[in-house]
Amino acid sequence: MVKVGIVGGTGYTGVELMRLLARHDGVSLHAITSRKEAGMPVAEMYPSLRGHVDLAFSTPQDAQLQQCDVVFFATPNGIAMSEATALLDAGVRVIDLAADFRIRDVAEWEKWYGMSHASPALVAEAVYGLPEVNREAIRQARLIANPGCYPTAVQLGFLPLIEAGVVNAESLIADCKSGVSGAGRKAEVHALLCEAGDNFKAYGVAGHRHLPEIRQGLASAGGAPIGLTFVPHLTPMIRGIHATLYARLNRDVDVQALFEQRYAQERFVDVMPAGSLPETRSVRGGNTCRIAVHRPQGGDTVVVLSVIDNLVKGAAGQAIQNMNLMFGLPEGQGLDIVPLLP
Amino acid sequence: MVKVGIVGGTGYTGVELMRLLARHDGVSLHAITSRKEAGMPVAEMYPSLRGHVDLAFSTPQDAQLQQCDVVFFATPNGIAMSEATALLDAGVRVIDLAADFRIRDVAEWEKWYGMSHASPALVAEAVYGLPEVNREAIRQARLIANPGCYPTAVQLGFLPLIEAGVVNAESLIADCKSGVSGAGRKAEVHALLCEAGDNFKAYGVAGHRHLPEIRQGLASAGGAPIGLTFVPHLTPMIRGIHATLYARLNRDVDVQALFEQRYAQERFVDVMPAGSLPETRSVRGGNTCRIAVHRPQGGDTVVVLSVIDNLVKGAAGQAIQNMNLMFGLPEGQGLDIVPLLP
Amino acid sequence: MVKVGIVGGTGYTGVELMRLLARHDGVSLHAITSRKEAGMPVAEMYPSLRGHVDLAFSTPQDAQLQQCDVVFFATPNGIAMSEATALLDAGVRVIDLAADFRIRDVAEWEKWYGMSHASPALVAEAVYGLPEVNREAIRQARLIANPGCYPTAVQLGFLPLIEAGVVNAESLIADCKSGVSGAGRKAEVHALLCEAGDNFKAYGVAGHRHLPEIRQGLASAGGAPIGLTFVPHLTPMIRGIHATLYARLNRDVDVQALFEQRYAQERFVDVMPAGSLPETRSVRGGNTCRIAVHRPQGGDTVVVLSVIDNLVKGAAGQAIQNMNLMFGLPEGQGLDIVPLLP
Amino acid sequence: MVKVGIVGGTGYTGVELMRLLARHDGVSLHAITSRKEAGMPVAEMYPSLRGHVDLAFSTPQDAQLQQCDVVFFATPNGIAMSEATALLDAGVRVIDLAADFRIRDVAEWEKWYGMSHASPALVAEAVYGLPEVNREAIRQARLIANPGCYPTAVQLGFLPLIEAGVVNAESLIADCKSGVSGAGRKAEVHALLCEAGDNFKAYGVAGHRHLPEIRQGLASAGGAPIGLTFVPHLTPMIRGIHATLYARLNRDVDVQALFEQRYAQERFVDVMPAGSLPETRSVRGGNTCRIAVHRPQGGDTVVVLSVIDNLVKGAAGQAIQNMNLMFGLPEGQGLDIVPLLP
Repeated sequence: MVKVGIVGGTGYTGVELMRLLARHDGVSLHAITSRKEAGMPVAEMYPSLRGHVDLAFSTPQDAQLQQCDVVFFATPNGIAMSEATALLDAGVRVIDLAADFRIRDVAEWEKWYGMSHASPALVAEAVYGLPEVNREAIRQARLIANPGCYPTAVQLGFLPLIEAGVVNAESLIADCKSGVSGAGRKAEVHALLCEAGDNFKAYGVAGHRHLPEIRQGLASAGGAPIGLTFVPHLTPMIRGIHATLYARLNRDVDVQALFEQRYAQERFVDVMPAGSLPETRSVRGGNTCRIAVHRPQGGDTVVVLSVIDNLVKGAAGQAIQNMNLMFGLPEGQGLDIVPLLP
Repeated sequence: MVKVGIVGGTGYTGVELMRLLARHDGVSLHAITSRKEAGMPVAEMYPSLRGHVDLAFSTPQDAQLQQCDVVFFATPNGIAMSEATALLDAGVRVIDLAADFRIRDVAEWEKWYGMSHASPALVAEAVYGLPEVNREAIRQARLIANPGCYPTAVQLGFLPLIEAGVVNAESLIADCKSGVSGAGRKAEVHALLCEAGDNFKAYGVAGHRHLPEIRQGLASAGGAPIGLTFVPHLTPMIRGIHATLYARLNRDVDVQALFEQRYAQERFVDVMPAGSLPETRSVRGGNTCRIAVHRPQGGDTVVVLSVIDNLVKGAAGQAIQNMNLMFGLPEGQGLDIVPLLP
Repeated sequence: MVKVGIVGGTGYTGVELMRLLARHDGVSLHAITSRKEAGMPVAEMYPSLRGHVDLAFSTPQDAQLQQCDVVFFATPNGIAMSEATALLDAGVRVIDLAADFRIRDVAEWEKWYGMSHASPALVAEAVYGLPEVNREAIRQARLIANPGCYPTAVQLGFLPLIEAGVVNAESLIADCKSGVSGAGRKAEVHALLCEAGDNFKAYGVAGHRHLPEIRQGLASAGGAPIGLTFVPHLTPMIRGIHATLYARLNRDVDVQALFEQRYAQERFVDVMPAGSLPETRSVRGGNTCRIAVHRPQGGDTVVVLSVIDNLVKGAAGQAIQNMNLMFGLPEGQGLDIVPLLP
Repeated sequence: MVKVGIVGGTGYTGVELMRLLARHDGVSLHAITSRKEAGMPVAEMYPSLRGHVDLAFSTPQDAQLQQCDVVFFATPNGIAMSEATALLDAGVRVIDLAADFRIRDVAEWEKWYGMSHASPALVAEAVYGLPEVNREAIRQARLIANPGCYPTAVQLGFLPLIEAGVVNAESLIADCKSGVSGAGRKAEVHALLCEAGDNFKAYGVAGHRHLPEIRQGLASAGGAPIGLTFVPHLTPMIRGIHATLYARLNRDVDVQALFEQRYAQERFVDVMPAGSLPETRSVRGGNTCRIAVHRPQGGDTVVVLSVIDNLVKGAAGQAIQNMNLMFGLPEGQGLDIVPLLP
């Protein structure tokens, strides 16, 4: 049994990790930390966990995380970079669900995240945890940078086109829509039901932190820099990301076959039949990314529709998929979930 | 392995049965019928089932349901009463998720449901499938009348009080709120997002079909007729029932202890700590009924708050709980689900 | 033209006052204060007001509110009681949308609101601004205590029964459901879309501040203390209150006629035809309270359904109705709004 | 007073026309037809109109529409083209809110709408009712083709760029998101709250009927054919369209100034300050189109954000704006509405 700790379990990625780990046969949940809520039973804050998680939140000191095999950081940006070293030194493997280790160019990271990086050396060591790209490296990794939610949906949608070199990579467009849980469980006015409900808007048009992460991944896949316009939008639902991706084909190609071949062995990427229109609810609660490819009016603009649950394949589910790979467990263990529809 | 058939799998209780049965280790799914959609792969209508259910809808003839061990009717009212006999005669056990066998007084049933009953004899045989009341009879039953969603939430909320005789049973009030999925997957104007969204209303105030069902259950529990005012409301959410129940105590009693004792052995009834305020989302996707009991200002009015997921404990989950009992499986098999929150 | 000031215009009642006053021909908007946002154009915070309100938020000092004819307090509880005296002394009339002057028993107020009252003398002077009860007093008032949202819906629903003495007033039940805007525009976790969306729950069962306000109003109407169980619920919508009221008739009476007669002259109370089921959206954005009365199965329990828009008849609209009365304007001026449906 | 008739008043554009016309000082509402609901008071179907609209639905025969000055068709496609001629011959002016007269190329229309056109001659006469483009022609018109909702938002967003010739018009992208009311008040499964709620999806990717309408308008504005990829999406809200538009600049230009100049005289187009992020709710219930222009990272991709209320500027409001122009009334009469927020 893999002994698991969670740092910062009071947010949505924290409770989602617990939801999934509670039904994972290969792990035991050792500790969940929260300085602020130390002592409170987890199930008191999240009654959905009553009968499933008996732990209380503990302080980092009491948690004795160095006894764990793996620790998940479900914390704000900037925490894991300060606390990971001690755990790694103690032989604990670390999966950071925040952004601390996602960007290899530390100066670029510092610019977008507005703080100095506490552990540049770890950035170089960290493996970007997108199994569909880095599976073998993940198996060997001590430290995983778990991808962002938008980057997961966008990269999985563009990868087959970029890897095959069949699109003009200088003018990609990613028009993305996210449920409000992407903003986390923070007391902020813009995420109130009365602000975000029955409403639709773009945000971060001038520049969103997931832009450099996506650019890095696609540039690596294509072997050359890419040009991307990324516009995220807030949509009045709880979970789900829908990425609508646009690229110009530079040659005639069977895009459906291209996607099917690329993901033929991927358990958590579902290339839907030609003509499909994936819905976010078709992956609600599950770890699957569903993708459909279109060429409207048969033209040279390819439109990729890619949906994930931002809290699962976009966060906690992918983190567990990475953990499974790191510990030699079946990649899908604990993730064999039928999405909740309706 | 219990061989399972489903009649009428295109509605919400049908897809919910499939979601749950797909992860149930003790069953094999044999056939799902739909006259209208015969030939269509189930996962084409419900992409959430892609990779989990490989069957296509079949006609009733092709389905060969008499080969099943058990058949669920996830059909409109009036179907099971006509089709159950042939299956029972073939040795197949039947669980009806509709209302055909719920009311023991056939004349009363015919009045509320506006049709003649095709099999009055079966009404007498059928066992009302509320395990918290009828567990032993369910184990032996050939035919289960699976309770309605409101009746499940309301009866579980009132039962400890009625059984103990501590409230005035002539003037009970059940103010109930349901998500829209209770209306089914039918093309009806009142259930459109633009009609039911951002809106709240009562309905069925003059008389709702679940009223006689609740009255029958509570009268049986208390050994005397009860008086009940039942007002259902439609609330702009997908899943969930919240029953707010009012009764006058006829003696001073520790209601918290009363509820805890009544349900101490019940895996799917969670009596929350005193002062709790159960949320419908705390049971979303799960088979649990969560209950809290209050005496506002310490007066003699007791307020019971009872929440379920109408599609799970209020329909498909309870049906599977009944199936488990009927076939000697662990009662909670396939139902050990952590609710999806947020 | 009545010269109007608003103290605390950044919340939902503040923006709603501006929405309505911007289209009111008899007023001029003089100043809107916000210490925190002083200097920011109102329409920058609320783009819906672009082209309709040209003012910027000002500090209380800069606002020179003593030059106004009337000042609305759209502030948290506890502000108006400290600031009203100076305005009244300057000859400015005051309408408080918060609770500072609603409860005549100051000790009771201090218990429920958890603070000392700064101006007990003003409590005695203040007129409770429910025009359907206090119209003549409102016309003469210097200081109005604008009713709470729940108290408006509940009192208007119970009044005809209480005034006529036809129900048992010791055991009233008010099961109320509110949209989330009732919680205001405050950064609080429980009002996030991901917490309040697709979810339903009760709150304040042990005691809600609107309980003493409702009790006071109904006791006054009936000439005797009343007993009330009041259970508020949060429903996943933005605007709207639906009060479902239960009472036992103590004699046989034509409740439909009773309500129609009571409100025959009331422009903003709409007694719907017998059998109606009022929807909250039917009053969305409007100042009307719609009411339907039922006697399920012809029994002696009367069920009243009462809906308002909590931000209009439950707050800003009623405040303007009061202002119109105070200044001799037509009572409905600026309030002749067709609700927004869908 | 302009005497107004409405054909087909039971849908959302019908009720929206009535909401707006009920508060329009320059018109009298003569008749509203509905074959199916003839005899039913309008306010019985739409209680929001109680006290504002006293008419009952009438049959087309009883309605005597030829006595009107203007008739609005709020009907499905294919009705106005058969019924307009008789009215025009009787001297009645006609505004069609459906698509019958929007596409000048009749063969193209027949291909997209799947029926033969009953009045090709009227297509040639009809004026496309986008006042920001065709104001003078609208004043003189007998017959108005009121624009579609997506075409309004998309054309207003692209027009300044296309007219000025500053973008590559062969590769425009319009990624559009609509509230569910765009689907009308029809009993269809895909528009149920349980299907469209808490969910996001694209539709019509292979080809949507608004594509040729947008292409026609932009080609006319630019004097050359344009290439457009148009992807509509369904978003879980009631009202609102958010168009996110992408184009490549072919020269360096101050796009903010370009938009401000283009719409300087337009009362119902609000070019927001640079950096703005328009929300759909900022126009909820109002006739304004709000637009913001961005050049992310200062590159040559321009991103235009354009929001309207699909039922107002995208349908009923624009129709009344057209009527005002046709009858020499102030263009904004009856449309001076402060949007409802929250």
